[in-house]
Amino acid sequence: MRQVAVIGIGQTKIDEHWDKSLRELAGEAALAALNDSGLDRIDAVYVGNMMSGSANHQQHLGAYMADWIGMRGAEAIRVEAACSSGAASFRTAVMAVSSGMVDSALAIGVEKMTDSPINEITAELATAADAEWEAGNGLSFVALNALIMRRYMHEYGWKKEDFAPFAVNAHANAMHNPFARFHSIVSVEDYLKASMVTDPINLMDASPTGDGAAAAVVVPVEKLFTVNAHKVIRVAASTAATDTLAVHHRKDPLFLNAAYNAGKKAYTQASLSPADIDLFELHDAFSIMAALSLEANGFAERGQGPRLALDGEILIKGRIPIATRGGLKARGHPVGATGMYQIVEVVQQLRGEAAGTQVENATTGLCQNIGGSGSNIITHILTTASSN
Amino acid sequence: MRQVAVIGIGQTKIDEHWDKSLRELAGEAALAALNDSGLDRIDAVYVGNMMSGSANHQQHLGAYMADWIGMRGAEAIRVEAACSSGAASFRTAVMAVSSGMVDSALAIGVEKMTDSPINEITAELATAADAEWEAGNGLSFVALNALIMRRYMHEYGWKKEDFAPFAVNAHANAMHNPFARFHSIVSVEDYLKASMVTDPINLMDASPTGDGAAAAVVVPVEKLFTVNAHKVIRVAASTAATDTLAVHHRKDPLFLNAAYNAGKKAYTQASLSPADIDLFELHDAFSIMAALSLEANGFAERGQGPRLALDGEILIKGRIPIATRGGLKARGHPVGATGMYQIVEVVQQLRGEAAGTQVENATTGLCQNIGGSGSNIITHILTTASSN
Repeated sequence: MRQVAVIGIGQTKIDEHWDKSLRELAGEAALAALNDSGLDRIDAVYVGNMMSGSANHQQHLGAYMADWIGMRGAEAIRVEAACSSGAASFRTAVMAVSSGMVDSALAIGVEKMTDSPINEITAELATAADAEWEAGNGLSFVALNALIMRRYMHEYGWKKEDFAPFAVNAHANAMHNPFARFHSIVSVEDYLKASMVTDPINLMDASPTGDGAAAAVVVPVEKLFTVNAHKVIRVAASTAATDTLAVHHRKDPLFLNAAYNAGKKAYTQASLSPADIDLFELHDAFSIMAALSLEANGFAERGQGPRLALDGEILIKGRIPIATRGGLKARGHPVGATGMYQIVEVVQQLRGEAAGTQVENATTGLCQNIGGSGSNIITHILTTASSN
Repeated sequence: MRQVAVIGIGQTKIDEHWDKSLRELAGEAALAALNDSGLDRIDAVYVGNMMSGSANHQQHLGAYMADWIGMRGAEAIRVEAACSSGAASFRTAVMAVSSGMVDSALAIGVEKMTDSPINEITAELATAADAEWEAGNGLSFVALNALIMRRYMHEYGWKKEDFAPFAVNAHANAMHNPFARFHSIVSVEDYLKASMVTDPINLMDASPTGDGAAAAVVVPVEKLFTVNAHKVIRVAASTAATDTLAVHHRKDPLFLNAAYNAGKKAYTQASLSPADIDLFELHDAFSIMAALSLEANGFAERGQGPRLALDGEILIKGRIPIATRGGLKARGHPVGATGMYQIVEVVQQLRGEAAGTQVENATTGLCQNIGGSGSNIITHILTTASSN
């Protein structure tokens, strides 16, 4: 198994991109990543995307993108794991390079959601849940998360305002990220008076949809030439795990079992522990998911995720900075692209290119992308440290 | 890079399965493959599927299937490459095992097309073509293939009846395959009087849609225990290549350039030539594609695919038997599942389990799955021969 390094990253601003087609949007991120890598040819393209079939009437994004970015002929497929499609494309690229079947791979995450009416997007997002047992009974994605959050508040005694720091932190960090969807400070007061979406989830607990694309180029460390001036960023761990698709099938819906399993495998693979992680790009699609992710990955005891946030430990200078470039909440959540934004942002941090929200002396970053209501988890640890 | 072997296969009959849900259908094939393999636990599940998001309002098939078949927790994603999604899932499984990241993987191809009205399915199939430059101008998939066939007949002087042997052969072979969609002999006369779909493609040139699933279990050859009584079937080559998504962007629309490239890479990887191939499960979605596939893979000169068929060389006892279990034309073409049916059928042939259409002493089989109008090609060579 060959060790893999990230040598190029690219991203677009997350926005309503009415002036760009799906391929123009994905192409912008892909070409930026290729340019950043210094390579002019790659062997394989993996596109992470959830809903282009319905939202853009275009599937087959592998060949579609390989052709568009001038890599005609390269092998290319799309991978889909609902909201974890982005990380799935990165993991597939890592696997392909690691196997020796290809010597360079480009992972692209892309989603163009604003072409379709919002009611169709809501229905499409629900296809990540169980069509027969959840969506078919009227449960939208927000509703599923609201049920989990309500129960969590009941079990552990948290109040609504205890979740405010997640949104406050995400929005503060996004102020320094030119690619973020939102550039607006959110106060605890703003959080408390935000419109309710599905009780107890209000607008400040929920991440926004949007159009965006992010991409990265990976190569084997052993073949790493000095193609550019960047620090070498190694993929120290790449893991994945699933849980039941339907939330009601879990013994304990308040623990992200798959996140725990993927995290545990990742720590083992990298020979690291939570204490070694300098920052954590987690999947804060809803603030309850941020809390549960902190717990599943060893940064907080069960039920104590909000404590970490209330104590300021999730801030850039805190114990475990999260959403350092805005997270899903403020950078935005173009679903199939999100996992690739997380990779790109961790690379920025490890290169020391996270202007405004740089985590000092960061050498090791964790990112974890969640598909469905915690049913598909893909975890990566990136590091500037040499091979162990 | 570890060598990989197929140790279990499973499939469902291709039909209109009104009585089965998407997961029941895929589960039937998956559990049959697991049972055939003798394994009771696998590390990863890769689901090839094109259109479940729209046809079944269910995406996220990785976690969905892992959960359903009792492999909860296993890593699982869906892969999509239009009509080559099935082979893409197999290639991803091979890559995962080959990389050393997982020690056993299950590839499932599934499509359940008859839940949706046929006009929606036709529109959905067109998402494999270029939405802006082909589908958006009214070109359906049949229309694209009709344009190619018409030009091919013009360039090389073939008549309509010269394509009859493809359908005649496929239907004759399907008579012996209990999993095939059709069990009806087709004569040259039947072919000639079949209803026209899009001139020059008639009903006997076009493969039928349907509901179906096929699956296979792969493990590293080095870890191969005697878990079952089957012959060891090695994956001698696994390759892929793309071409332009839109047919009009190709210098020569009458040559499957990506099929040629994927085929060439596969022959090199396996250290074999076309002369070593005992049977070829090709992608006869339309009879013109069967002809072009034979040419691109070195079995016929350019423009001479129909010659091979007219000379009987594609029959079971011919030089290069194709569609040995009915092919897309008569076994059926549930799009995202088709590539996995090809794998399963080659394994059957190499095991000597292709009752009624067994290719005598077959040791090496080629299969090639096509996505779009030749824009995404995934090629595998399976063999009973020892490692070279």
